[in-house]
Parts: sequence; structure tokens; C-alpha cells
Amino acid sequence: MRALAFDVFGTVVDWRSSIIAELQSFGARNGLQRDWASFADAWRAGYAPAMDRVRRGELPWTRIDDLHRTILVDLLGGAAVAEADIDELNRAWHRLVPWPDSVAGLQRLKQRFVITTLSNGNVSLLTNMAKSAGLPWDCVISAELFGHYKPDPEAYLGCARLLDVAPHELMLVACHPSDLRAARDSGLRTGYVRRPLEQGPGGPLPEVEDGEFDVIAHDFIDLARRLGA
Amino acid sequence: MRALAFDVFGTVVDWRSSIIAELQSFGARNGLQRDWASFADAWRAGYAPAMDRVRRGELPWTRIDDLHRTILVDLLGGAAVAEADIDELNRAWHRLVPWPDSVAGLQRLKQRFVITTLSNGNVSLLTNMAKSAGLPWDCVISAELFGHYKPDPEAYLGCARLLDVAPHELMLVACHPSDLRAARDSGLRTGYVRRPLEQGPGGPLPEVEDGEFDVIAHDFIDLARRLGA
Repeated sequence: MRALAFDVFGTVVDWRSSIIAELQSFGARNGLQRDWASFADAWRAGYAPAMDRVRRGELPWTRIDDLHRTILVDLLGGAAVAEADIDELNRAWHRLVPWPDSVAGLQRLKQRFVITTLSNGNVSLLTNMAKSAGLPWDCVISAELFGHYKPDPEAYLGCARLLDVAPHELMLVACHPSDLRAARDSGLRTGYVRRPLEQGPGGPLPEVEDGEFDVIAHDFIDLARRLGA
Repeated sequence: MRALAFDVFGTVVDWRSSIIAELQSFGARNGLQRDWASFADAWRAGYAPAMDRVRRGELPWTRIDDLHRTILVDLLGGAAVAEADIDELNRAWHRLVPWPDSVAGLQRLKQRFVITTLSNGNVSLLTNMAKSAGLPWDCVISAELFGHYKPDPEAYLGCARLLDVAPHELMLVACHPSDLRAARDSGLRTGYVRRPLEQGPGGPLPEVEDGEFDVIAHDFIDLARRLGA
């Protein structure tokens, strides 16, 4: 195995806590009161159906930044907020905070493997996030480069092609079994990392079958140890 | 200005010294005697015409790794060398050594700007080079992502699009005036860095007109100072 490709939202960064904190601050600045945790969950929940519209061809290729903004405007429901403030809030997804083990684990894994993003987030989002969070990627690969969102096979195979490795020399690391299953169907290896807090305390845990993935780890440090890095 | 895109071969790394050293070592391993400095110059000289064949549509999209290998095999002229040794030598372009100021200058520029490659080298070449040379890119952008080699405008405008900046918010940094002129024609800002040793000691220096580029610097530390980074 030569390279590791990481899902980002949920796997590397704690989108939920980050977005709730940004929403609370946005609410205070704009005099808006909402249940910001539910708002964050609804914002995130709008993302998969919006991508699916792109995947089915009902929408032309649209960046996550633009999908996020459409969902956000809809959730704000006509509240009087300046366009610039909406743009600034939408860029909260560029500023998500990593899980406590992410940076140290990536630094260790980077000693042995090429490490890249393989996210549905657009290149500028991933680049800005790496800068603000100190994520030490060797390169930034996004569904945007292929015009295909995960779980389309073009994303997994395109990542292997850009890195010039065979699919079986590349491992997808993710906390979402559906992403890993699609990567496996394209011939990639799979590393499942549990992120029990992704949906908040007490949130549901995905169901995974024994032996379904090549490696199961409880964080990136554990993943590094299991991969001999 | 928000981002800097760097030409790589010659601008960031000293391809000539690196390639000569690799060729000498290859020659010693394989019992071949040649004028390795001339061989290196011929290898590099084959690159622009090969890319131009792709740009004119005479060849389908072909990665630099594959163009480099074709030129190399041609220059070796049937010498008895194992395929694996040719592959290994061809990857010398993944291991080029930076100029002495490159890493420190990039680290400084990265504090203020998004810094990316914008090279005709393929993504895997640039990724491996960054890893071996310690180049602290925020992301890795290549002509390969657009299916258009520089100086086609698609490369410059594609880079701005992926970074989500306007062309005038992006500066191309290069030691080759032709690259900078094409970037300027696409609306980018331009930073010319002199690399008098690119073609070896006593090599020709490009001719540049006064005021032709936004910034002229004698190395990356000087560039950082001039850009307030």
C-alpha cells in the first residue's frame, strides 16, 4: 500500500461542533435566536440530497460551497441578513476544527504513505481548511477534479489515477461505511475509523459487519499503529 | 492578492544539477559513459516540443512522466538497460532538489498567501517531489487537472477557478518570461524570479523589459519581502 485518501467531513474534522459554534456566533451578531444544534444538523442533512441531484444529472456540476449556500439561505427562511454575512457564515465549512488526534495521526501516517484528501468538498474549501487547521496533506484531491461526487466510482478511481497508484495500493480512510463500501467496490482498500461523536453525544453509530473493511481503528493514532506507521 | 501559483521546474527546483547527478549515478550503475550534462540538457530540451504536440492535438493528453520516458528512451539509443532501471531514472524528476532559498521562502510566503504549484508536471510527480524536497504547498495544482499544458490559458484560469479567486487575485511566480506573459494575458499578476543557474553556470539569461512584470525578485526570500510576507 502506497497512499491513503481521507474522507474529510466527520472523519478528519468535527463539522458539527464547529458549525454549531459558528452559528451561535452568527446568531449573536445578527440578533437571531434558533436551536443552532438542530440548524447545524439540518444544514448538514441537506447536503446528501443536493449532491444526489448533481449525481443524477438534475443539476449541472455545482460546488459544495454553492450547495451549502443554497441550503443555508433556505434554512434562514428570509431572515434579514446581509449577503456578506451569509457568505462569511457559509465559509464556516472552510474553518472546521480537526478531531484531537487528526493532526498528530496524519503527521505520523505521512512519514510512511502519501496522504491526500478525497472529499466532496471543493478544492478551495479543502485548501483553506488545511491551512487553518494545520492538516499536513501531501496533496488536495476533491470530487471537483472529476466532476463526480462520491460514491461515484470516478472519484475513487480518479484519485488513484492522479496519484499514479493501482486501486489496491490506495486505502480510503473514512468514518462512513457507505463511502468505504463504494471505495471497496472500485478496488481500493478500506480503513474504517470510528467517530462516535460525529452526530453529537449519544448519536447513532453506523453498523459494520465483521471483516467488512481491511482495518478498523478508533482514531488516527490507532490507524497509524495498525498500518505500521 | 490572495494566492501565489508557482512554476516548478527551474523556478522552485534546480532540475539541471539534480538530473546530472542522477544520470551520473545511473551511468556508473549501468556501465554507461556519456556527457551527462549534455544528456540532461537534451532530455530537458525534448520536453517543450513533446508538450507542444499535445497542445496542438497531435498527441492525446499525455502526462509529463510519459513524455519524459519517451524522450529518455530515445536518448539512450538502444543501450542495454533494464526497464525497471529506466523507470527508476525517469522518476529522477520526482526527486529534484530545491534551490537553497525555496523552502524557507515558501514557508514565509505561506504565512500570508495560499501557495500552490502550477506546473506542467503531473500531480503524482509534484506530490512526490513536495514530499522528498519538503515543499510546503497548500495544494498541488497541475496542468494535468485541466488537460491543458501551460501556456494554454485553461491552465492559468483553471488554477484561479479551483482556488476560487479572481485572476487578478492570483500571481504566477516563474523564472520563465514566456510563462509569465501567458499568465498576464489571462489576467493574472506576475512575479519574475531570476534563476541565473537554471541552464548551468554561464547559461543564458532571459531578456525582460522594464515594468513588464508586477514584481521582480532575485530569490523567494526577496519575493517574500517585496510582497510584505
